[in-house]
Amino acid sequence: MRRVIIDCDPGHDDAISIILAASSDRIHIEGITTVAGNVEVEKTTLNALRVCELLGLDVPVARGAEQPLVKTREFAPDIHGDSGLEGPQLPEVPKKTAIEQHAVDFIIEKVLKSDGEITLVPTGPLTNIALAIQKAPTIVEKIKEIVLMGGGTFGNWTPTAEFNIYVDAEAAEIVFNCGVPVTMFGLDVTHQAITTPAILDRINSIETGVSEFVRDLLVYFTKTYKEVFGFEGAPIHDACTIAYLIDESIFEFEKVRVDIETKGEYTYGTTCVDRLHVTGREPNVKFAYSLDFEKFWVLLLSALK
Amino acid sequence: MRRVIIDCDPGHDDAISIILAASSDRIHIEGITTVAGNVEVEKTTLNALRVCELLGLDVPVARGAEQPLVKTREFAPDIHGDSGLEGPQLPEVPKKTAIEQHAVDFIIEKVLKSDGEITLVPTGPLTNIALAIQKAPTIVEKIKEIVLMGGGTFGNWTPTAEFNIYVDAEAAEIVFNCGVPVTMFGLDVTHQAITTPAILDRINSIETGVSEFVRDLLVYFTKTYKEVFGFEGAPIHDACTIAYLIDESIFEFEKVRVDIETKGEYTYGTTCVDRLHVTGREPNVKFAYSLDFEKFWVLLLSALK
Amino acid sequence: MRRVIIDCDPGHDDAISIILAASSDRIHIEGITTVAGNVEVEKTTLNALRVCELLGLDVPVARGAEQPLVKTREFAPDIHGDSGLEGPQLPEVPKKTAIEQHAVDFIIEKVLKSDGEITLVPTGPLTNIALAIQKAPTIVEKIKEIVLMGGGTFGNWTPTAEFNIYVDAEAAEIVFNCGVPVTMFGLDVTHQAITTPAILDRINSIETGVSEFVRDLLVYFTKTYKEVFGFEGAPIHDACTIAYLIDESIFEFEKVRVDIETKGEYTYGTTCVDRLHVTGREPNVKFAYSLDFEKFWVLLLSALK
Amino acid sequence: MRRVIIDCDPGHDDAISIILAASSDRIHIEGITTVAGNVEVEKTTLNALRVCELLGLDVPVARGAEQPLVKTREFAPDIHGDSGLEGPQLPEVPKKTAIEQHAVDFIIEKVLKSDGEITLVPTGPLTNIALAIQKAPTIVEKIKEIVLMGGGTFGNWTPTAEFNIYVDAEAAEIVFNCGVPVTMFGLDVTHQAITTPAILDRINSIETGVSEFVRDLLVYFTKTYKEVFGFEGAPIHDACTIAYLIDESIFEFEKVRVDIETKGEYTYGTTCVDRLHVTGREPNVKFAYSLDFEKFWVLLLSALK
Ligand SMILES: [Ca+2]
Ligand SMILES: [Ca+2]
Ligand SMILES: [Ca+2]
Ligand SMILES: [Ca+2]
Repeated sequence: MRRVIIDCDPGHDDAISIILAASSDRIHIEGITTVAGNVEVEKTTLNALRVCELLGLDVPVARGAEQPLVKTREFAPDIHGDSGLEGPQLPEVPKKTAIEQHAVDFIIEKVLKSDGEITLVPTGPLTNIALAIQKAPTIVEKIKEIVLMGGGTFGNWTPTAEFNIYVDAEAAEIVFNCGVPVTMFGLDVTHQAITTPAILDRINSIETGVSEFVRDLLVYFTKTYKEVFGFEGAPIHDACTIAYLIDESIFEFEKVRVDIETKGEYTYGTTCVDRLHVTGREPNVKFAYSLDFEKFWVLLLSALK
Repeated sequence: MRRVIIDCDPGHDDAISIILAASSDRIHIEGITTVAGNVEVEKTTLNALRVCELLGLDVPVARGAEQPLVKTREFAPDIHGDSGLEGPQLPEVPKKTAIEQHAVDFIIEKVLKSDGEITLVPTGPLTNIALAIQKAPTIVEKIKEIVLMGGGTFGNWTPTAEFNIYVDAEAAEIVFNCGVPVTMFGLDVTHQAITTPAILDRINSIETGVSEFVRDLLVYFTKTYKEVFGFEGAPIHDACTIAYLIDESIFEFEKVRVDIETKGEYTYGTTCVDRLHVTGREPNVKFAYSLDFEKFWVLLLSALK
Repeated sequence: MRRVIIDCDPGHDDAISIILAASSDRIHIEGITTVAGNVEVEKTTLNALRVCELLGLDVPVARGAEQPLVKTREFAPDIHGDSGLEGPQLPEVPKKTAIEQHAVDFIIEKVLKSDGEITLVPTGPLTNIALAIQKAPTIVEKIKEIVLMGGGTFGNWTPTAEFNIYVDAEAAEIVFNCGVPVTMFGLDVTHQAITTPAILDRINSIETGVSEFVRDLLVYFTKTYKEVFGFEGAPIHDACTIAYLIDESIFEFEKVRVDIETKGEYTYGTTCVDRLHVTGREPNVKFAYSLDFEKFWVLLLSALK
Repeated sequence: MRRVIIDCDPGHDDAISIILAASSDRIHIEGITTVAGNVEVEKTTLNALRVCELLGLDVPVARGAEQPLVKTREFAPDIHGDSGLEGPQLPEVPKKTAIEQHAVDFIIEKVLKSDGEITLVPTGPLTNIALAIQKAPTIVEKIKEIVLMGGGTFGNWTPTAEFNIYVDAEAAEIVFNCGVPVTMFGLDVTHQAITTPAILDRINSIETGVSEFVRDLLVYFTKTYKEVFGFEGAPIHDACTIAYLIDESIFEFEKVRVDIETKGEYTYGTTCVDRLHVTGREPNVKFAYSLDFEKFWVLLLSALK
């Protein structure tokens, strides 16, 4: 049983990640923290609450950072729509509300009270995690693992930077170098976790409330990925993190050095992944580079039943 | 009556700044928050408590950030000694203790509960202020003024950067651009607020507990400034901020554009002060460039009686 | 018939590129210019002369820049050996000598005297080309095309930068933005132009002086690529440029924006290739991304007969 | 007798620098090389020729770089007018013409043919000198001294950067670190070499052709300095270099470390002058910080008679 805090910016793939986590008896969700990312933190918080309500998931939701550590704010409405979760019908105003506590304080408290079993699962910009480390540096000794979606050897927001890292590269620099074991699901692997017409058909045939919700998410997400990037399917980036925590054998990994560029003229937010081991520096990241497509989808589909 | 939160890293000149504030009926200290800077935050907090105890000053002291937002930590023990307040005899363990609340949360709460009358007076690195703005961006509408010691048109920690800004330039960038009116006391003016043998004599002749404490501080501080920088006297940098809040006429000001360099190879932490108005950009800072030496010291000496 | 100046740092793959050019009746080599890169310019010049002598190739060889525009010098002896052309037996001191004229002046003169038919083919750092443009900016209107080996969406010298661009990124910035049509063969495609045991067997069976020379080059080059990068074969990077000028149909291309990073902390020399068209900026490069393996090797082998 | 090459971008103060050099029997001008700076290189070359013609000065004038090493071009017409030498009446088309040889090649040839007695005196951007070092690195062993106008502890083109260095900071980085002894006249000292009404009166009373020419230059220059910077007089920046070569006792110097910023967001072209010796690095520059006003002007006025 893995005890996790999901730190996210739902977001279509964040939502699916939560659904996958909620469905598994191998995962215990200690709480969900939200951050500005795909859309404003008001919206990502609302979306997290909506997903919980849909699932009947009774976990604390704590609202976090409104803006990156240093950089000005940037959002991705072209990909996720104005609400951040366009596609399915959703309750306008969920009954569930966020807790009073700020996400950063929630993370600090949970980690400090644990005996080192909490895993953080950031699937948005790393602002909350960096702020928690900043405010209470001793938490790093008690975090079991940071399993994150972000980065890659290529970019999707600039030619070399992925969105989550680009939005707050200073936060990423702190998290990647904090000393906690970091497992990274970047675009190299998440672009393999992609929808296809056959997959959508399999989801369609399930016919549960959750499967219909996910189908509507994926139809919308597939459409925007086609429009913006010309992709034939949509990558379910964030769900890779939870899939790994349920079944590590879905992925292949390599230990590598990753440095975060925060200074460049064109390369802000680039994760410099040393796959050829040319830097000679100590690895700091467990880097996922390959995914078993069928295994991944079998797991994901099982969560929708 | 100005209601202030003094955010500091005592520090010899921070201590004198607190003493000056405590002595004035024009200043109401809402609290003192501490930050890593001249020395570790454990020590700056202890020093703040010691100074309060010495003065019989009953205000909350809240401990803040242990490290800069993004940069690795850097201290200045050559200037302030191992404890951060070398020179005078001090109670090892003050009876007074810090409050439980983190400095960042103290600042946020005080400002949000006020009606816009709180002035922040940072005399150390700007980490706490930046984190407060980060965590609760709405405070910027309620902060009356930020009166800070930092920066200048030349440096003392690198050839172009002053210590407070250099230690956390990302925090400085946030604070200088947050929209709150910023009044800046940089090295240009604080190097005019300098000790001389005549001034030390005048302090010596006062003979109160506080004057003896301050004399011991200044003797030590003058010695390290001589050793490290070859100066004939020690600049009482931080006290300029409080002196201004008591008597603005001590200083001369100019409205200028100030940008904070966070990217350079040699210039990290430089405050780019546009005194020739060559950038054509809107001023964002009230920049103090001149000090009335006699007026400054008369004010300071009156606080020691 | 394409009139070309080959600007190179031989270098195993540079040597093969020259051999391919010399063998083709579609290419007229106006001259060979040399630059510091894989090894010092004294050695790359000597190697160019040796290759010419071996081939009986009577073209002017002009020695160029000893060092990058701004950066300090960096070489790659691990890959190309101490001489820059380790492997085959070579005449110690070739009879042929370099011309007096500096490579930069040779390029300027040749281009200015032409009617716009000269194509530059840089297969080393871009220092000479940048200096020529710097010294005589009007040449850019008369250069037909710049067909270069360099860059890619990933690196081989740092995690994100390829050797030729990394060695002189300032020069690359000038060349990529000079306005001349640039055709780029980066690691994405040159790593497809790779030796295999079967290819080495086919070369072995040719049994000419040139084929034996190339075999010895490739055996050495394959060995160092195995040792340094763990590759199963050696990429004949530079020869892609000449192969393209002989038979464009070997490659597939895409018009993209490429920006050169010269400022980053970890990303100096990165070619930011906008394959997803996320920058919205005008393409400045014809980017080769795919190679027909069999077609490429058939062409190359035909040059050895 | 100092043998000098004046590398300049006339420019009002460059012109006065040439006049001062031509008047002194302690200076032998080997040649004048021109560079893009205050205005385009066509214009600075024309202006150099005009000044030579006016003085009857028979020295070679060689035209140099049209643009900085890496940066895009930037000029200063607000200060020097459209022609670069507005104010006095000048022959439209001088009879004297520039030599064929490029400035860079002229410098290299002169230095290599000398026995180490040539001093370079750059009073514009350092592009030519950097290119000469780039093309023929061995010249650095034979250059006696580089006496330049540029930089300072504050700026005039950006808040922290002086024009000559800002226009080509990459060139400056090369020159300051090339190993040749560098004597630097930056704004700290050149702003002391300023016109006053009394000085203008003294020039007025001389009544030679040259004095009238210089008066007209200074009247114009004083006007633009008033308009652009609000100064009461115009600094004769460039003439400090030649004044030093004639009479070193006019100035006071300090050996300091100077680093050139080429990466910053706001600080490109800043000369980081370590006057407090905080870097602990070896000095690389003889830095002029003080000027004897009367001595300077007596020397300059003597040149007009
Ligand atoms: Ca997400
Ligand atoms: Ca302080
Ligand atoms: Ca090469
Ligand atoms: Ca000049």
